[in-house]
Amino acid sequence: MSLRYLTAKLAQQIDEELMNQAGAFSIDQLMELAGLACAQALARVYNKNEYPNVLVCCGPGNQGGDGLVAARHLGMFGYNPVIFMPKPGSKDIYKRLKAQCDNMDIKTIPPSNDTSLLQDSLSSSNVILDAVFGFSFKGPIRTPFDSALPLLTNSGLPIVSVDIPSGWDVEEGNVEGVGLQPDVLVSLTAPKLGVRSFRGRHFVGGRFIPKSLEEKFELNLPEYPGSDQIVELAVKE
Amino acid sequence: MSLRYLTAKLAQQIDEELMNQAGAFSIDQLMELAGLACAQALARVYNKNEYPNVLVCCGPGNQGGDGLVAARHLGMFGYNPVIFMPKPGSKDIYKRLKAQCDNMDIKTIPPSNDTSLLQDSLSSSNVILDAVFGFSFKGPIRTPFDSALPLLTNSGLPIVSVDIPSGWDVEEGNVEGVGLQPDVLVSLTAPKLGVRSFRGRHFVGGRFIPKSLEEKFELNLPEYPGSDQIVELAVKE
Repeated sequence: MSLRYLTAKLAQQIDEELMNQAGAFSIDQLMELAGLACAQALARVYNKNEYPNVLVCCGPGNQGGDGLVAARHLGMFGYNPVIFMPKPGSKDIYKRLKAQCDNMDIKTIPPSNDTSLLQDSLSSSNVILDAVFGFSFKGPIRTPFDSALPLLTNSGLPIVSVDIPSGWDVEEGNVEGVGLQPDVLVSLTAPKLGVRSFRGRHFVGGRFIPKSLEEKFELNLPEYPGSDQIVELAVKE
Repeated sequence: MSLRYLTAKLAQQIDEELMNQAGAFSIDQLMELAGLACAQALARVYNKNEYPNVLVCCGPGNQGGDGLVAARHLGMFGYNPVIFMPKPGSKDIYKRLKAQCDNMDIKTIPPSNDTSLLQDSLSSSNVILDAVFGFSFKGPIRTPFDSALPLLTNSGLPIVSVDIPSGWDVEEGNVEGVGLQPDVLVSLTAPKLGVRSFRGRHFVGGRFIPKSLEEKFELNLPEYPGSDQIVELAVKE
């Protein structure tokens, strides 16, 4: 039985089942574990001595929330994260997650109509955590991200993408050719259909799916080692 | 500068500062990370092949909530946790954390006036996670825990205590002599005054204290390794 790659609809359904009354999880819990997994995957591949400066790029949705949690944990791990969040989420949880980063003295690039501040930050960054768009992304890429994504690509920096590389169609992949090309991918709960062709280092995180839910959706998740919050998938031929 | 051991009042104050409007943390987040740290500390010392059956003893307060989170993560790690929670907490978060354990098919010992069910569970357990009383405990030990704690002690099983061994005075330690004698202690955020004399394996967990708060309260926390959620303290002479 091989690992199941999820449609956008199925990923949404799993999230809903985790958080409905029966599933009983709060978004705070799931985001905390998801963001921690992202931070640990980045730390596994890019050590803090060689790659201390992490540009954490956050979109306005749940994906951005995962990014903020990851930024905080990266700060705890001894990295110097900087947040690029040109379109802050409006939900209460984003404001709280952002305040937690502020309390850690994690800098955020001020919103701006020109891209020079982002370019400055890129020039002093060692690695990018891409938490811009998640599994509910539907193109086309809108402003301000239409101008930001090419800058991330052109920076030549290594990229760790969360769940689905930003700009990729969740089910079809990088069909428009405008998406990021990450070196590392962290799929949350289970990989999405669009990343079937991904050939970089691929981790799965979000170790909170009850066995009954895994069986119901025939996820065939890989076995996480020990008490780790991430598991690396074997490289595909 | 040495690690600070906290009064009960100071521990309470730190929790409040983390969760007030400025601190911005939800109890869901802090409990998730605290419980994960407890589960990871237990897994570090007692591997799941030799110690698969963990009796997770939960009190009615926040400590019990940490225990429920730990039980769920232990289940994820491949242990067989069983919950002893004779006096369930009334807060909404306990009900949700308990439902999350139910969804993982983690068994709970049914409430009962006699102790035979607890004794049965002890006889098939390999290790105890003690999350009965936390830093807000004030003696004397009330029913049903007055009869339960001696059974835990008499079982001869290894015990991992969370924050303060149950039955110990938070600041004075095991002065009444009725407290558990754990082999392993997981202090959350920072150790409490009452465990100064503890000589077993001692971990600190709760990797979420911003530097500014650490400095304000002069905690002098140990450095966590890598992306770990726990750090073991050196054995004291």
